[in-house]
Amino acid sequence: MIAVDVMGGDRAPGVIVQGAVRAAQKVPVLLVGPEREIRELLYQIDPGWEARNISVCDAPQVIDMGEEPVAAVRKKGASSLVKAVSCVKEGKAVAVLSAGNSGALMVAATFILGREESLERPAIAGFFPSTTERKALVLDLGANTECRAHHLEQFAHHGSAYVSTVLGIERPSVALLANGTENTKGSLLTKEAFALLQKSSLNFLGNAEPFDVFQGCADVVVCDGFAGNVLLKTMEASFELFAHIMQKQIEKEPVTSVWKSQLQLWSEYFLQDAFYCLGHRKYGGALLLGVKGNVMVCHGNSDAQTIENAILFAWKSFSV
Amino acid sequence: MIAVDVMGGDRAPGVIVQGAVRAAQKVPVLLVGPEREIRELLYQIDPGWEARNISVCDAPQVIDMGEEPVAAVRKKGASSLVKAVSCVKEGKAVAVLSAGNSGALMVAATFILGREESLERPAIAGFFPSTTERKALVLDLGANTECRAHHLEQFAHHGSAYVSTVLGIERPSVALLANGTENTKGSLLTKEAFALLQKSSLNFLGNAEPFDVFQGCADVVVCDGFAGNVLLKTMEASFELFAHIMQKQIEKEPVTSVWKSQLQLWSEYFLQDAFYCLGHRKYGGALLLGVKGNVMVCHGNSDAQTIENAILFAWKSFSV
Repeated sequence: MIAVDVMGGDRAPGVIVQGAVRAAQKVPVLLVGPEREIRELLYQIDPGWEARNISVCDAPQVIDMGEEPVAAVRKKGASSLVKAVSCVKEGKAVAVLSAGNSGALMVAATFILGREESLERPAIAGFFPSTTERKALVLDLGANTECRAHHLEQFAHHGSAYVSTVLGIERPSVALLANGTENTKGSLLTKEAFALLQKSSLNFLGNAEPFDVFQGCADVVVCDGFAGNVLLKTMEASFELFAHIMQKQIEKEPVTSVWKSQLQLWSEYFLQDAFYCLGHRKYGGALLLGVKGNVMVCHGNSDAQTIENAILFAWKSFSV
Repeated sequence: MIAVDVMGGDRAPGVIVQGAVRAAQKVPVLLVGPEREIRELLYQIDPGWEARNISVCDAPQVIDMGEEPVAAVRKKGASSLVKAVSCVKEGKAVAVLSAGNSGALMVAATFILGREESLERPAIAGFFPSTTERKALVLDLGANTECRAHHLEQFAHHGSAYVSTVLGIERPSVALLANGTENTKGSLLTKEAFALLQKSSLNFLGNAEPFDVFQGCADVVVCDGFAGNVLLKTMEASFELFAHIMQKQIEKEPVTSVWKSQLQLWSEYFLQDAFYCLGHRKYGGALLLGVKGNVMVCHGNSDAQTIENAILFAWKSFSV
């Protein structure tokens, strides 16, 4: 069973329940949130839902996107987010996913599931697209806006271990996100982390710039959560900007052009496909590494397709 | 006269001299670097160069991209970078531009031209593309990898003043780059800066994510140089990734497709145009704000076109 925080996300609960209903055609899903509201939505979306692999767990409270994580988790024990995480602890679900307040998700996961001892701070990790076969797992993508050098080193160890297990890479290569590839480049934090990584047993390659990440320069790229978040969101925003410019360009083609409509169709298809591959929709979300349980962090603006993919990915990865 | 550091940049001195020769058809250029090498290049590129608006200033030393800025500037007083900056101080040029070590350029500009008192640390500022009419001036893009909150506030004041003067905007809006738009989001640094900006006389709108920057959410967006550098380089790298995926997609069209070659041609033209608008080639570079003189920081991988544009932009902006 995959536990889903129904109230998390910019378009919750509608798209969350929609995505879950679709995924439930293949895998068992446990919807966590206000029971009555969920049941109403389920009947609207699929009157025959009761015949599917769908269970509902009541959780009347909601944690908002802007709430301070620690206070929210402490105060709202009956929230969909906290209860969904508890389902993993209690063995009702093999994994939990939420598109809600990611800070609160991390806090709840840490409090309820507990930390792995070798990682002081759980981190959000996600695979990035690249022009080559190798896709870098980048962490942290936003769980820890403040990091110290040894945190980055721990991220590197955990990222390596994960990539090694999941992709079967024997000695994954590791790079450090910086503002230049030269050893002298970086902030105080990355310079200190550079020294630690160089002394470590890891297969450390050195600094990497965003360009290198998108070329699959290494199996694992580490950074603090603020920089990682800027990296992730700038990539997504750039794609949208690019698509916008492409559409403008096509509009500029003369109306008399015989191939304008063909070009429009092609670009629509291409953009849909490209966004699917490049964006978060393909995997549905990122992983929270460093807690004793399987937690997926979905994008706040997740749509039904993203949620469906995230549930299927979680099931495939963790149901064994 | 615009002073050009001939030895700065990944493809220096070749493309730098090429770009300068092109620009010299319209504006006077002062090439700073090893005189003999420059003269040889000039004769190769344009045997009639002596009839143009080109002067040469001898500077035998070179500062490399990886050198520690302060030490390099102290040690290499006869370098092309240091001498080019000195030309502004001595009144030989109205502005200087370099595609070399940007840290060294900042140090040289600060030492030689002096700081403006209201800005403790000079910052690199550049306009970002957007889906709307408003383009945000983002700073710092990499001059200061370590910042404190009051530095960000100073960036906001200087960015506002610049935008106000150059674009004639009366009360420019200001935003703060963060990992979420909610007031509670951000690092310790941005949270402290948020409070300062809110108390200031500026037209402060709050936090902005990369997506907001590309929508022209504000006239000025401030961040530390590490985050700004990630923002800038991720945008550029994303465009390249997108172009790569687009070309792959076109290759997949069946060979028998009657419009494959037309599509290929269209995409080449489109990508060239898009990169020109989106990338640094259009303006040629970014500005160093906060020093007593006009300094343009060009991208390390600048080509001749970029250098030409940067020289023309500098002349247009500063020759009055």
